[in-house]
Amino acid sequence: MSIARIDLNKFLTPSTDILHLFLYLCRNITLFKMSNHSSTNLLDSIHTPADLRRLPIEKLPQVCQELRECLIQELSINPGHFASSLGVIEITVALHYVFSTPEDRIVWDVGHQAYAHKLLTDRRERFCTNRKLGGLHPFPSPSESEYDTFTCGHASNSISAALGMAVASRLEKSNRKVIAVIGDGSMTGGLAFEGLNNAAGTPNDMLIILNDNNMSIDHSVGGMKEYLHHLHTGSTYNNLRNRAAQRLMQWGWLSDDRKKRIITFNNAMKALLNNQQNIFEGMNIRYFGPRDGHDVIELVNTLRNIKDMRGPKLLHLHTRKGKGYEPAEKNATEWHAPGRFNPETGERIKSDNTNQPPRYQDVFGHTIVELARQNPRIVGITPAMPTGCSLNIMMNEMPDRTFDVGIAEGHAVTFSAGLATDGMLPFCNIYSAFAQRSYDNIIHDVAIEGLDVVFCFDRAGLVGEDGATHHGAFDMAALRPIPNITISSPMDEHELRHLMYTAQLPDKGPFVIRYPRGNGEHTDWECPMHEVPIGKGRKLKDGQNVALLSIGPLGNTAQRAIETFERKAAEQGRQLSVAHYDMRFLKPIDEDILDEVGRNFANVVTLEDGVRNGGLGTAVMEYMNEHGFNPRIKRLGLPDHFIEHGTVAELQHLAGIDEASIIDTLEGMTQA
Amino acid sequence: MSIARIDLNKFLTPSTDILHLFLYLCRNITLFKMSNHSSTNLLDSIHTPADLRRLPIEKLPQVCQELRECLIQELSINPGHFASSLGVIEITVALHYVFSTPEDRIVWDVGHQAYAHKLLTDRRERFCTNRKLGGLHPFPSPSESEYDTFTCGHASNSISAALGMAVASRLEKSNRKVIAVIGDGSMTGGLAFEGLNNAAGTPNDMLIILNDNNMSIDHSVGGMKEYLHHLHTGSTYNNLRNRAAQRLMQWGWLSDDRKKRIITFNNAMKALLNNQQNIFEGMNIRYFGPRDGHDVIELVNTLRNIKDMRGPKLLHLHTRKGKGYEPAEKNATEWHAPGRFNPETGERIKSDNTNQPPRYQDVFGHTIVELARQNPRIVGITPAMPTGCSLNIMMNEMPDRTFDVGIAEGHAVTFSAGLATDGMLPFCNIYSAFAQRSYDNIIHDVAIEGLDVVFCFDRAGLVGEDGATHHGAFDMAALRPIPNITISSPMDEHELRHLMYTAQLPDKGPFVIRYPRGNGEHTDWECPMHEVPIGKGRKLKDGQNVALLSIGPLGNTAQRAIETFERKAAEQGRQLSVAHYDMRFLKPIDEDILDEVGRNFANVVTLEDGVRNGGLGTAVMEYMNEHGFNPRIKRLGLPDHFIEHGTVAELQHLAGIDEASIIDTLEGMTQA
Repeated sequence: MSIARIDLNKFLTPSTDILHLFLYLCRNITLFKMSNHSSTNLLDSIHTPADLRRLPIEKLPQVCQELRECLIQELSINPGHFASSLGVIEITVALHYVFSTPEDRIVWDVGHQAYAHKLLTDRRERFCTNRKLGGLHPFPSPSESEYDTFTCGHASNSISAALGMAVASRLEKSNRKVIAVIGDGSMTGGLAFEGLNNAAGTPNDMLIILNDNNMSIDHSVGGMKEYLHHLHTGSTYNNLRNRAAQRLMQWGWLSDDRKKRIITFNNAMKALLNNQQNIFEGMNIRYFGPRDGHDVIELVNTLRNIKDMRGPKLLHLHTRKGKGYEPAEKNATEWHAPGRFNPETGERIKSDNTNQPPRYQDVFGHTIVELARQNPRIVGITPAMPTGCSLNIMMNEMPDRTFDVGIAEGHAVTFSAGLATDGMLPFCNIYSAFAQRSYDNIIHDVAIEGLDVVFCFDRAGLVGEDGATHHGAFDMAALRPIPNITISSPMDEHELRHLMYTAQLPDKGPFVIRYPRGNGEHTDWECPMHEVPIGKGRKLKDGQNVALLSIGPLGNTAQRAIETFERKAAEQGRQLSVAHYDMRFLKPIDEDILDEVGRNFANVVTLEDGVRNGGLGTAVMEYMNEHGFNPRIKRLGLPDHFIEHGTVAELQHLAGIDEASIIDTLEGMTQA
Repeated sequence: MSIARIDLNKFLTPSTDILHLFLYLCRNITLFKMSNHSSTNLLDSIHTPADLRRLPIEKLPQVCQELRECLIQELSINPGHFASSLGVIEITVALHYVFSTPEDRIVWDVGHQAYAHKLLTDRRERFCTNRKLGGLHPFPSPSESEYDTFTCGHASNSISAALGMAVASRLEKSNRKVIAVIGDGSMTGGLAFEGLNNAAGTPNDMLIILNDNNMSIDHSVGGMKEYLHHLHTGSTYNNLRNRAAQRLMQWGWLSDDRKKRIITFNNAMKALLNNQQNIFEGMNIRYFGPRDGHDVIELVNTLRNIKDMRGPKLLHLHTRKGKGYEPAEKNATEWHAPGRFNPETGERIKSDNTNQPPRYQDVFGHTIVELARQNPRIVGITPAMPTGCSLNIMMNEMPDRTFDVGIAEGHAVTFSAGLATDGMLPFCNIYSAFAQRSYDNIIHDVAIEGLDVVFCFDRAGLVGEDGATHHGAFDMAALRPIPNITISSPMDEHELRHLMYTAQLPDKGPFVIRYPRGNGEHTDWECPMHEVPIGKGRKLKDGQNVALLSIGPLGNTAQRAIETFERKAAEQGRQLSVAHYDMRFLKPIDEDILDEVGRNFANVVTLEDGVRNGGLGTAVMEYMNEHGFNPRIKRLGLPDHFIEHGTVAELQHLAGIDEASIIDTLEGMTQA
């Protein structure tokens, strides 16, 4: 049955090659087998939400069950975001059942929860290509499907975007409904609050679904969590009140108008009975809940009741990450994106890491603890990523000196600035792409006064399968124009440790250390640490014909490329050699190296895993031109378009920064 | 007396010249006269807060009165931020009286309210240099005074910074107190909420003073305003409860511990009695208020009562912007920064604007209305600056299509993206420096999908007296690396209109138009509009020896410089001519012009009012190098350090982008 549904046109994109087609067919055969064994009878008949809406309501629990099985099977083979997707299956089904998608708009906050949404919106056949080069996008993407309304890789933007759509719907006098689905973790982001504040004051009929699982990726933190917990304890009364109101409405005893008048008294009563306050109603956003987010029939009924109400409203649902798959329910953080696993046993299939170099994030995690033991001024700050950036290592050993501030990158930086103002030395660890959220905080709150804040930007450069929203592409180009700031990137784990050691020495000012996702280069990473002179690079190798200047771990790729290039040239009887410099610092840039290169080389290659416009290559060009050197400079780096998802190796190749591309560049420069 | 206090060492900085010294002395003589006539008896004895703390409490109203008179006199001559400073005089006096500044830390949110703070902290003598080149900073600045704890030019950062300091105080086991003073306008910023959320979940003893005047610069908007209004209506009960508790504490009948246990019941009672909910207590931040922020003695008593309480707490005060000066009380927006005025009559001394070109912001304001009358898709968005960016013109005519979203730049952009997703054409107007807050929103929410959002970045380039935090220096360099985006800057009002017209034509994608603060070039600005080809500049003048490529209104300065340069050269018998191109677009850059320049010129000057690193000059360099052209390129633009405050002319001179600097550059290039 599944096999009959394979529509090659849907899968074939300009970038599809035979290999992918083959992979696709293999996958679908797997799917076919799986479908047989896990009985997706209903799901097989659902291609679009319109099909779903033709089912009677009592079939919905089965649809949810089939979706759950399908996701578990699929993700056990083809890894992706797991726990959050399982947690919103009933919400997804209920929304598509009650609302007229795609005309009505669902805005997902952080799209890794949207797998069930993809399966229901004409993408089940292609789901096996999820996160793969040329395949489905990792997060909803308007360019992929009319059911995907907005880019949602970064947290907390759904309310703002949905409010824009809801206002557009009003201005166009359309009857289009708009729904934002936001988790309690995303609710800690300032952008969500700005959206909420504006939603309360602007005429609109938006519905906000608050998916409360007390989690972002790690556990939620802060006042909002506390607050939502209190709301939970008040659920009996809330349910009572809302059900009573619904019943009265159905019987025609209560008009919308009358209801509004008694809401005042209700709220006060509720607060009295439940010892809690309601932020949302305080801001004039109507509040419903909390309800069980896994009771799909109840959800449908609730949504039907509130869908046509005027004005902004919020439905608070309790869900469980990983719902329906016991191992994931027990440890949702570990099952956020678990990789491959055995669906029967829950055993995660880990590749053998013996003798593998460690991940950069773990080197960071262990090294900060090592430094913090010596330097009592050091504190660690993360915006909701203690596990993702391995600051949890320090959190376990020094809980008082480690701060998870919630999904709040701007605050993470300004809070760090406050700590630095009064004598602490904060290491503020943010994923490079998310650090874009804190651009002004870096300029205004840190750089102007030149405060001693160490920024560790993890996931710098290409991150692979998470795609365009997650690549750490812009950090170097965006930060270089800022005065008073040091920008560095280590070539390997040893360098990362030396840079971290250097950054915590006195009076270094704002100090950026960017490093990539994934593993480093050495198994013996635990070297003694020493100070690195600020703004000084390293000559790794002498050479005659070309100078290659790299920054960051791509330097290792460059080393391999140079070796291959020189060997091949020698085999062809050409004596060619390439000098290689690891610049280490983008800013201040090593002018001694640049003078040496300018004087001795007519051909220069620069190599970086950030955008070419404004990065290392540009800095080198500026220096050369201003100092009267005129080498030919070839800048290798990320091109001027957004790079999609795929493996890092695939994407590096597409961007022209892999070993083969470097060799080609060296070839091109030494011919002629 | 005043004259005796003049301490030249304090005033003399490396950049002080004779002219400024002279100005300084003149000012002080004025101050001397003024002091005599407005009886600043107490103020004359207060050099630092320690002096203030030696006064008995009953003298404080007089101190406030003298501060008020002093400010009114000073600001009538030497313009600055007026209404907000008058509104916080009592708060300022009470804080410095109760807390041990500078050991205790006051963090001002948006420092334009901090003039009384400056007068009390050893800067009264130098206050006449406020906002002037080499004089006092426009906003509190830690590099200027130990009483200034944090950079505070951009709104909403005080809670985050103060939390950092409060946590540092705990970690250092110090008894240092930390106080954040934040207005209700700033409270709409997401950063403030992120700070609040984190403050609720992290052990700290911070005090937040919420200065509620229902204003930012314009009136506050959104749910928070609504919410605070409700809190106000509940003041009777709050006062009652807090006073009763204080009395019981004083009598020893109520311990802190017992108090905590009854707070639960209290909150519920309060909600019942007052029909209101308390966000702050819902987040476990203790709430006090609302109180009268102009009763200095009551304030001192309240602060004394709560200062040693453990845990985060918030004191909600009602104040009036412009308090004590009737014209400003009546129209606080107009009196935000009124310029010179007659202190007796309140008459504002306006310079004669007849036959003056209009301000760029007004050309924007009138033009968007003109376009919106024709194009029903156009909507206008401002984050709390309707008057500052002149969107109020559209707001008056088309209130349904104009949105003031609060101090919320990130949301302004994402809300615009939501509007654009569903068919609207938003013109999102943000001051360039504040748009740094929305960097990720521009990348993630707009550029990835290439949505049709027009960004009008007002106050681009040097803004003058508001200084380092307010210059729109980074926009071009930071935005250029982003794919899918058009970046333009008009040379005059006509070009601004053409660019606005072009940007609203179909399918233009994200379109940035940046223009400066202040007046344009033409009195006849109301030209018919036409489409400008994207990425095309204009050759304004032919020439032989140098090509000058400018972007934005500095092109007018360049025109004058070229004229002078050529005339002088001719007078010296040298036939030198300069070709001048108005590039108009930074991205896409006009490659035809660059080819023409590359082929025909050995000397190129680029000119921009943004940072040199990564801007127009860099883009030109990249192109030339990649296309095998090797002209000498001199990039004129903002240097790699933060530029302080002064007049725009003074700062342009310091940055080397004024007429004289351009002429010097042309001289340098044509000699040898």
